Amino acid sequence: MTERPPAGPLAPSWRLDLPPWLVASFDGAVARTYATAEERMAVAVDLARRNVAMGTGGPFGAAIFESESGRLVAPGVNLVEPGGCSVLHAEIVAIIVAQSRLGTWDLGAPGLPAHEMAASTEPCSMCLGAVPWSGVRGLLTAARDEDARAIGFDEGAKPEAWWRELEARGIRVTRDVLRTEGRAVLEEYAAGGGTIYNSREGE
Amino acid sequence: MTERPPAGPLAPSWRLDLPPWLVASFDGAVARTYATAEERMAVAVDLARRNVAMGTGGPFGAAIFESESGRLVAPGVNLVEPGGCSVLHAEIVAIIVAQSRLGTWDLGAPGLPAHEMAASTEPCSMCLGAVPWSGVRGLLTAARDEDARAIGFDEGAKPEAWWRELEARGIRVTRDVLRTEGRAVLEEYAAGGGTIYNSREGE
Repeated sequence: MTERPPAGPLAPSWRLDLPPWLVASFDGAVARTYATAEERMAVAVDLARRNVAMGTGGPFGAAIFESESGRLVAPGVNLVEPGGCSVLHAEIVAIIVAQSRLGTWDLGAPGLPAHEMAASTEPCSMCLGAVPWSGVRGLLTAARDEDARAIGFDEGAKPEAWWRELEARGIRVTRDVLRTEGRAVLEEYAAGGGTIYNSREGE
Repeated sequence: MTERPPAGPLAPSWRLDLPPWLVASFDGAVARTYATAEERMAVAVDLARRNVAMGTGGPFGAAIFESESGRLVAPGVNLVEPGGCSVLHAEIVAIIVAQSRLGTWDLGAPGLPAHEMAASTEPCSMCLGAVPWSGVRGLLTAARDEDARAIGFDEGAKPEAWWRELEARGIRVTRDVLRTEGRAVLEEYAAGGGTIYNSREGE
């Protein structure tokens, strides 16, 4: 009970730094389009794998595409530890980057093409809630909740058939796209001794 | 279908700017402590009201305190429109600010005092999911879900008795703290013609 927040003024801004490898790799990625669900998911799973390999966060990746053209709009990786912030799940980072690039808080706004997110693991309860707010109209997922739970991550309180909640809001969900590959990243991370955080460390 | 994200490199960082009035007002606020649930909630509701009055976002405020000492650690307001980002709900902003000030992604980490959040409206599904990840051990709420829905906001898919999901994770929930005051801010916002966004504007 000894640590104290700094007294004095509040910092007027907060900065999210993307890992340099992510920024460097994005140039080439945008030069092409990703036509199929599998191609789009391969991007998300590759981001998850590289995030672990580069030591920049947890074993989760996400990416946002234009649904029709397949253009890659934004990548996201889990940055909870390097960013020092529990909300920085891969899906949240992808939403922040996509909305920043497009200059809108609603990827489903009139005049914009429809967008779709690929996530290397089914969303936790926070990210499930974030998806409708983001304005994406589709969600692809690879590893399942139970795959994340199997290595100790807490997915939080979610409806049994969580995808129905999104579909009721006009968001098309496709599960099990490259599930084996998404799960493999989780298993490699756990086998390598990566931090499994679930906010239950304290008293 | 004409707007396109900029091609070329990804911006290496993203900045969240807090409203200047929020930063300016925080100095005085940290000089005192907030002993009771009502005093803590009054801070959150006042933030919501000022956010509307200053035109810096939606009618939602949150604040994080040390549970025992009552010290104010971090304020938060809804910054979705000015920040151009759908995840910037008041609770998320408060979590970002608190974790940034304390230098940790887990406010419940060993060695830290317990923390409690006050939110001027019951959390939407995203924020409900974000609370356990943040590491706070308590949540106070004012206006209810139905008060937010009454003016058109979508709270998303939440369990019927959502507070039980938090209590099952060791987070104590106290509802209806200054509910009338929290609801009044929502009603004033709606009466004033404020934007009611629910990510269903697009096709």
